[in-house]
Amino acid sequence: MTDADGSVGKVYLVGSGPGDPDLLTVKAKRLLETADVVLHDKLPGPEILGQIPEEKREDVGKRAGGEWTPQEYTNARMVELAREGKTVVRLKGGDPTVFGRGGEEMVHLAQNEIPFEVVPGITSAIAGPEAAGIPVTHRDYVSSVSFVTGHEDPTKEESAVDWAALADTGGTIVVLMGVGKLPGYTAELRKAGMDPETPVALIERATWPDQRVATGTLDTIVDVRDSEGIEPPAITVIGDVAGERDRVLEFLEGA
Amino acid sequence: MTDADGSVGKVYLVGSGPGDPDLLTVKAKRLLETADVVLHDKLPGPEILGQIPEEKREDVGKRAGGEWTPQEYTNARMVELAREGKTVVRLKGGDPTVFGRGGEEMVHLAQNEIPFEVVPGITSAIAGPEAAGIPVTHRDYVSSVSFVTGHEDPTKEESAVDWAALADTGGTIVVLMGVGKLPGYTAELRKAGMDPETPVALIERATWPDQRVATGTLDTIVDVRDSEGIEPPAITVIGDVAGERDRVLEFLEGA
Repeated sequence: MTDADGSVGKVYLVGSGPGDPDLLTVKAKRLLETADVVLHDKLPGPEILGQIPEEKREDVGKRAGGEWTPQEYTNARMVELAREGKTVVRLKGGDPTVFGRGGEEMVHLAQNEIPFEVVPGITSAIAGPEAAGIPVTHRDYVSSVSFVTGHEDPTKEESAVDWAALADTGGTIVVLMGVGKLPGYTAELRKAGMDPETPVALIERATWPDQRVATGTLDTIVDVRDSEGIEPPAITVIGDVAGERDRVLEFLEGA
Repeated sequence: MTDADGSVGKVYLVGSGPGDPDLLTVKAKRLLETADVVLHDKLPGPEILGQIPEEKREDVGKRAGGEWTPQEYTNARMVELAREGKTVVRLKGGDPTVFGRGGEEMVHLAQNEIPFEVVPGITSAIAGPEAAGIPVTHRDYVSSVSFVTGHEDPTKEESAVDWAALADTGGTIVVLMGVGKLPGYTAELRKAGMDPETPVALIERATWPDQRVATGTLDTIVDVRDSEGIEPPAITVIGDVAGERDRVLEFLEGA
């Protein structure tokens, strides 16, 4: 199925960044203006979605009846539109390949012989901590940073995350979508020997106008979460860098 | 030292992304146009630096005589300009806090009572692999990704990176600035029990017009580096995701 002249379109897998339209890349912004169709879910957030003309938006996050659209539908729809000769933006929250299933979509497109391009987006795993005054690395005391998802494939029987190994790296740990499972993995990190006084920060709705930040230690953060009522979506930052916030907060603006 | 009306300016710590001007954020692009002064080194690359009017550029990467400018000079200059009431962009390659010393600059500004803001940039640690057809995470077989610098503080006596722990995480490992030390850390990872057949990719000048990619395994990648003549700056991706490139390359465009 191709258009009249037989040419196949193209799919751009585009990261929207953390939600602030100012943090779109120049390329993403242009593609949102020029694409024929934008396939999206709710993750890019209302401010960015509100800038896309209604007539080119197609919400693949939900189907009629309120059910979630399976990934298979999104995959098939990208291929179908490209075969009609369309220029398609598949818009994804954050970066397309940081826990965003962009890897699967790339392979699906290639297997169906659809030309595609990946347009990176600002990941909230980095921008979220920054907006809270936290650098994810620091030359003086951390040589690595690891990003983990707190929300794995629910069909997996057990967590594939090796929290003890992550603790052993000595680097910063950033957990995306990790509010609900906070008690489990903070306990695992303590069991693995991580200092219970290690600073921890929770950043709710990172970079959004109603961003909230709560801080504690590996020992106290679950109580802090509960008393502050921190809810998803939020990012957890574990490591000495989380303590930097207190040193800069008074002069930190924006975000 | 403040300007006539006594008001202090502001410093924006801005990430330039990996070098393609199209991968600047909308906010970074606007700030480069409106700032009074842009303090930069060579890392943002010629295409982005070339877009900044000469009269507002100040290269803090080198001093007269070819010497490198110490971080102390950059820190002092930011404060000095802000106290003159200037709006200052401190432009940094990639993201400001991913091995970019942004954390140190934030603290220095706060200690000197200078209002500042961090503007995240696309990190080549994610965009580089994507441009080579490699997603840094993959739902099917990797639950974490760790970023490491191959170029630590040279005053440190030994590497603070625990390669064995990184191997144990089972996640993707991305090494920035890791061409020179490739033999050392690939040997450490093999010694830690990582499968010698693990796919490895080297991405030289990621997202630049002359980007080059070389692939091998944990066992072969040093020979590949030498035969292909891969040189800094380059990113190393270690993990099964590096094997995805072969599945998508034929239909991957752009970058």
